[in-house]
Amino acid sequence: MPTAGMVEYGDASQEVRAIYDEIMAVKGIDFVPNFWKTLASHPPLLAEVWRSLHRAMAPGRLDALTKEMIALAVSATNGCTYCIRSHTAAARKLGMDEAMLGELMAVVGTFNQTNRLADGYQVAVDEQLMAGSEGGSARAALTRASRALRQTRVASRKAQRTPKARQRGSRRRP
Amino acid sequence: MPTAGMVEYGDASQEVRAIYDEIMAVKGIDFVPNFWKTLASHPPLLAEVWRSLHRAMAPGRLDALTKEMIALAVSATNGCTYCIRSHTAAARKLGMDEAMLGELMAVVGTFNQTNRLADGYQVAVDEQLMAGSEGGSARAALTRASRALRQTRVASRKAQRTPKARQRGSRRRP
Amino acid sequence: MPTAGMVEYGDASQEVRAIYDEIMAVKGIDFVPNFWKTLASHPPLLAEVWRSLHRAMAPGRLDALTKEMIALAVSATNGCTYCIRSHTAAARKLGMDEAMLGELMAVVGTFNQTNRLADGYQVAVDEQLMAGSEGGSARAALTRASRALRQTRVASRKAQRTPKARQRGSRRRP
Amino acid sequence: MPTAGMVEYGDASQEVRAIYDEIMAVKGIDFVPNFWKTLASHPPLLAEVWRSLHRAMAPGRLDALTKEMIALAVSATNGCTYCIRSHTAAARKLGMDEAMLGELMAVVGTFNQTNRLADGYQVAVDEQLMAGSEGGSARAALTRASRALRQTRVASRKAQRTPKARQRGSRRRP
Amino acid sequence: MPTAGMVEYGDASQEVRAIYDEIMAVKGIDFVPNFWKTLASHPPLLAEVWRSLHRAMAPGRLDALTKEMIALAVSATNGCTYCIRSHTAAARKLGMDEAMLGELMAVVGTFNQTNRLADGYQVAVDEQLMAGSEGGSARAALTRASRALRQTRVASRKAQRTPKARQRGSRRRP
Amino acid sequence: MPTAGMVEYGDASQEVRAIYDEIMAVKGIDFVPNFWKTLASHPPLLAEVWRSLHRAMAPGRLDALTKEMIALAVSATNGCTYCIRSHTAAARKLGMDEAMLGELMAVVGTFNQTNRLADGYQVAVDEQLMAGSEGGSARAALTRASRALRQTRVASRKAQRTPKARQRGSRRRP
Repeated sequence: MPTAGMVEYGDASQEVRAIYDEIMAVKGIDFVPNFWKTLASHPPLLAEVWRSLHRAMAPGRLDALTKEMIALAVSATNGCTYCIRSHTAAARKLGMDEAMLGELMAVVGTFNQTNRLADGYQVAVDEQLMAGSEGGSARAALTRASRALRQTRVASRKAQRTPKARQRGSRRRP
Repeated sequence: MPTAGMVEYGDASQEVRAIYDEIMAVKGIDFVPNFWKTLASHPPLLAEVWRSLHRAMAPGRLDALTKEMIALAVSATNGCTYCIRSHTAAARKLGMDEAMLGELMAVVGTFNQTNRLADGYQVAVDEQLMAGSEGGSARAALTRASRALRQTRVASRKAQRTPKARQRGSRRRP
Repeated sequence: MPTAGMVEYGDASQEVRAIYDEIMAVKGIDFVPNFWKTLASHPPLLAEVWRSLHRAMAPGRLDALTKEMIALAVSATNGCTYCIRSHTAAARKLGMDEAMLGELMAVVGTFNQTNRLADGYQVAVDEQLMAGSEGGSARAALTRASRALRQTRVASRKAQRTPKARQRGSRRRP
Repeated sequence: MPTAGMVEYGDASQEVRAIYDEIMAVKGIDFVPNFWKTLASHPPLLAEVWRSLHRAMAPGRLDALTKEMIALAVSATNGCTYCIRSHTAAARKLGMDEAMLGELMAVVGTFNQTNRLADGYQVAVDEQLMAGSEGGSARAALTRASRALRQTRVASRKAQRTPKARQRGSRRRP
Repeated sequence: MPTAGMVEYGDASQEVRAIYDEIMAVKGIDFVPNFWKTLASHPPLLAEVWRSLHRAMAPGRLDALTKEMIALAVSATNGCTYCIRSHTAAARKLGMDEAMLGELMAVVGTFNQTNRLADGYQVAVDEQLMAGSEGGSARAALTRASRALRQTRVASRKAQRTPKARQRGSRRRP
Repeated sequence: MPTAGMVEYGDASQEVRAIYDEIMAVKGIDFVPNFWKTLASHPPLLAEVWRSLHRAMAPGRLDALTKEMIALAVSATNGCTYCIRSHTAAARKLGMDEAMLGELMAVVGTFNQTNRLADGYQVAVDEQLMAGSEGGSARAALTRASRALRQTRVASRKAQRTPKARQRGSRRRP
């Protein structure tokens, strides 16, 4: 049992239920995961975290599977059991097989090793790597930034309309 | 230099600028911190993170100083230089003195120690602690959850109106 | 089972038993948690860790509940199951309800996010934050330091006397 | 200065130099990064780590850019400055622009947040996620495993031959 | 069940079986631990990780027990259950008793505490410590490096021959 | 500059100065490291942390160098710059050369890798490892525990007498 009372679908307020519906629709599952039922013990947290996660995971320049694998890499590095299980399941659903998981884990393992070696030996960043890692000029970033924000606003408005549309139709893809 | 181009106020789009204004107003500072100028290189990230952080830090059942000290405890545990500096400055502004910082650090240090001992010895959770840490029944959580969500929605609408009001008046509290 | 033999109350030496008694008295519980029974496999560790923790958690400029919530924030950041259970139980006992836990978790979640963004983008600390986070002059610290140390010594002596007093009376607050 | 004496190319033994040459050839750079010059203070470490990393990063089922972005996600989660700079530079070279970096950081930030929430609330893994995350039967894995190992051996032998071939030709791609 | 299909000895390819045999011979155990059976789901990962680990753990300037205790210190700091169990078992087998484990844990606990205090207070490194921690000149490192690499190559060749020899004799010490 | 005012020797209270003297005597250095000068901003913290650390690092069943190397392994795993520099300097002074550091780092790197693989794949602990890692019976632990605690008390009393003796004589070993 988690440290806060999970809110079951049948007991949820209308607003919490709307978020549950959206979660199941977006993720294509027919149950509300314990994670979200627990966050619902403090609805503002449920609303915030779902919104952030939904935005971050929406396919954009990176596709959905790549994003799930990055989420898995982060979760493995942090050793979070729930998250590892959850993102492995999601990535498998999107096509990750044992060899892809193996390659992912090889990268995760290797850089957890080199991270500690670079820190452990206190290696200074090479000038060439410093230069190669720096962002472009603000001016150049501006145009892209402005355009991207506009797209987000549009996407956000769409996202707010979509769940309702989905609710009317085939809400829960099994 | 960060790994993405920082967007200066003068170069920012209208939408990014609106967020910058809100940040300065809410935090009572007269400059845009590098953290936010860097996130502006990808405006959707700026918008999401600012919104989440703003909500999380708004005084509620926990006051602003307690929240800053918790943020500092997290940042010290993660060893994040930028965040430690930022939250120490914010907590000092809200009244944290050297003795309070000392007590905070004593707690942070002690539990980083005991966390590793509990894990290192693989201590099982006592039944009494398990019972004492569990959340209440879902039914009980329901009423509170519903009420809290409604309050959040109201706060959210207010928060959306407020920045503009602040901009008209004395936007930047020094 | 932990990786070291737990020492039960009945099997404990007089000195270990005295520490067990103090733990139960101070925490107001009627059992010795597994954590302490495990540390007792190496008594110097038990003595040291209990003393440190007892001092760090004694109400001072920060109250007991705030300290428990900071301990929980650290434990959640480190992902330590035993410690999360233990400090959630302790904080609940001191009055933390689901909404307070929700606000605490919102702060913990948000700053684990921003910590990685500040590091991930390699954001440099602003001069203003650097200045605002620095400690006062040594001279100013001196007077406070001297006074605080004296108070600690007094508290320490008192703490050494208290358990015995408690043992005579109602040792275990249920 | 790192905590071990860096070995410069001109001072290196023939065997260390051969590894340096391979590093520059594979990474397409014309300098030996400080990280490798530091590991060379203990040549067996240099040899092991380079070999592991080279294998892990070779394009396979995941392409080179995806692997660099996963490496960056791990490094940001661990807060390793050298590694963040190094993998950001490498990913940029392979085509990562500010929007892709932004999406990557959004995912990294979000899951560092949810990881701590899942742990912090002690959420139990849903049966559905448990089932969905489990590996296939050993029998099914066998055929793939056997085939993959054979391919690795071949790749390994090739990799051992390649550096020499490269050394004869245009060793350092600028 | 792990997130990848474990490969049992009876189902393993000849190449995977050879690695399993070597693992049991080197570690003196008569079963293949789940960790290695899981890595075998992606044989290149099994081969790489076993090789790295075998080299890193071979007694050299540090003896086997010291290395196991360092592995345990790392695993406790990362909170990895499997690894803590595994290295505690290995260290016990090599002679670690409860007092040694207690001293080890005291060091692990203490420095997880001070690490966060040094970071949390943003303490700058003293010039004296900086100087005292720096590696010697590259020239001096060269001779040692060259010699060490040669020894490794020899050891590597020997290690490749040894397992077979062991397999012929008493492969599995119970 | 740290986030709390460092207390210089000349400005310190008599009690803080006594701790400074003990630190320099025990560590055989002729300066007070920034770490301790910073903790002195909250004297109870200075007193507690120094005492814990002094006890944990005193040679016992593990020798001083082994303890410093374990401290370095923890610090590298946590990525704490101050601590890495500090313990590398201390270990070098006690005889750690580049090859020993190299072997230490090889172990630290390898297990940061395997820790994330064991977690990342969610490998269950083998029954054999579980059994082999468990502590002995409480009864057996009792005798040792009792004896060890008595020795600690004696050591503690000695330690309290020693500094004064040292202060009278050649306080600062250079």
